[in-house]
Amino acid sequence: MGTKRDFATPSEFRLACRKGRFQEQTSGICPGFVQANVMALPKALAFDFMLFCSRNPEACPLIEVTDPGNPTPPTLAKSADLRKDVSMYRVYVDGQLNLSTVLDAETYWRPDLVTFLLGCSFSFEDALAAAGIPVRHIEEGVNVPMYITNRQCKPSGPFKGPLVVSMRPMTSAQALQAVKVTSRHRLSHGAPVHLGNPAEIGIKNIDEPDFGDKVTIKEGEIPVFWACGVTTQLALMNANPELAITHAPGHMFISDVTSEELCLR
Amino acid sequence: MGTKRDFATPSEFRLACRKGRFQEQTSGICPGFVQANVMALPKALAFDFMLFCSRNPEACPLIEVTDPGNPTPPTLAKSADLRKDVSMYRVYVDGQLNLSTVLDAETYWRPDLVTFLLGCSFSFEDALAAAGIPVRHIEEGVNVPMYITNRQCKPSGPFKGPLVVSMRPMTSAQALQAVKVTSRHRLSHGAPVHLGNPAEIGIKNIDEPDFGDKVTIKEGEIPVFWACGVTTQLALMNANPELAITHAPGHMFISDVTSEELCLR
Repeated sequence: MGTKRDFATPSEFRLACRKGRFQEQTSGICPGFVQANVMALPKALAFDFMLFCSRNPEACPLIEVTDPGNPTPPTLAKSADLRKDVSMYRVYVDGQLNLSTVLDAETYWRPDLVTFLLGCSFSFEDALAAAGIPVRHIEEGVNVPMYITNRQCKPSGPFKGPLVVSMRPMTSAQALQAVKVTSRHRLSHGAPVHLGNPAEIGIKNIDEPDFGDKVTIKEGEIPVFWACGVTTQLALMNANPELAITHAPGHMFISDVTSEELCLR
Repeated sequence: MGTKRDFATPSEFRLACRKGRFQEQTSGICPGFVQANVMALPKALAFDFMLFCSRNPEACPLIEVTDPGNPTPPTLAKSADLRKDVSMYRVYVDGQLNLSTVLDAETYWRPDLVTFLLGCSFSFEDALAAAGIPVRHIEEGVNVPMYITNRQCKPSGPFKGPLVVSMRPMTSAQALQAVKVTSRHRLSHGAPVHLGNPAEIGIKNIDEPDFGDKVTIKEGEIPVFWACGVTTQLALMNANPELAITHAPGHMFISDVTSEELCLR
């Protein structure tokens, strides 16, 4: 699409987002660095949401939480501004998606917002590729396909809803390797939650993802599914908060921390 | 000391606590099962405390959090009552240790109490022993020695304070093995935080622990230090909550989950 997708550092990438020069999804950007889901909520709901994350660690691996009103994640990126450094935001009002393509969330910010940063499977795609495992959506230049499953998360207060998964197709042999590679990346969703028959987790049509884009599944490949942070956005809509600011699915925050460093936390 | 220390199951152990028949520390009890720190706090403080745990995961590995008022930990032990099933409790009022040897906490319970269960290094002592590593305090029939260090935890709201560590003496070769064994046990404090010279972490006299008992350090052995859940009790005293109920140091809650199962969470 012509947009620059090579950045020397995560901070250069974040500056491009801040200036509105980069508005795309982030799979394949700054390989080897941690990408994160962003969820800013009023402090009154913060405990219930944090407990939801704690009870559903595969879908909601908690990397960092800011103090109320503070837009900087202290260990992930000291120079970052979480109100501006994501390529595209969503704003929810009274639990409904109010604005889906916000480039700068500063207008909507409040001093009582607590921001949660949750791990993302984009963080281990570099490690998958290094192990010779295909990452089809990067090969095809699209967003990862994401699906709503029939598995329910454990609820916490008003937060409840189904597990959402991302999918990468590969051979069975590659899937075994992928389990080994990604088990280490616990804070980026870790090992897959399912592989093989999509119907077993309630996915009716693998060619019609609920979020992101369809990718090619080649002859001899099976779909492999990882828990996905978009799970939190469905739980959010059930909780009806008066305000929530999140990244748009696939448009992740990119930190200064490497995925290898995150494996050691 | 004559008290029965062999129990067929954790639930048999918990029943003995509930009936006041077991009032001792729990190192070596129900080997292979997860032991946990207990911290019950009013819900108004729950988010700040949970954030303290999230920011200090080595000292405060969060295994499970109950809903307000609910005395049962849903995944750790469905039959348990956290108000009664610990061998000895402490009750803090206005941040001060008010009662240090409470056998049944039901009298002090409130419907707004949220109970946090944090991992404990007692959970991996069975794995250490299986790897041929001495667990001196079990050999000597005493509580593990615990020390206040000069390392400060990352604060959250009113919760702040120094890191507390537990110590086990062993040879350098055994220490290397111990790092390998315990790294897997992330939710039981994981790998050591220090080994060797106690002064480097602010411990003046290894023979005078701040909590628990002194143990013998043999010729050729070095002290090896793990982060300890007692860290939370010092943070608690700084936070001055109107009420908090915890286990007494070393008197842990014992769950129905094995340490191996916890490694897979």
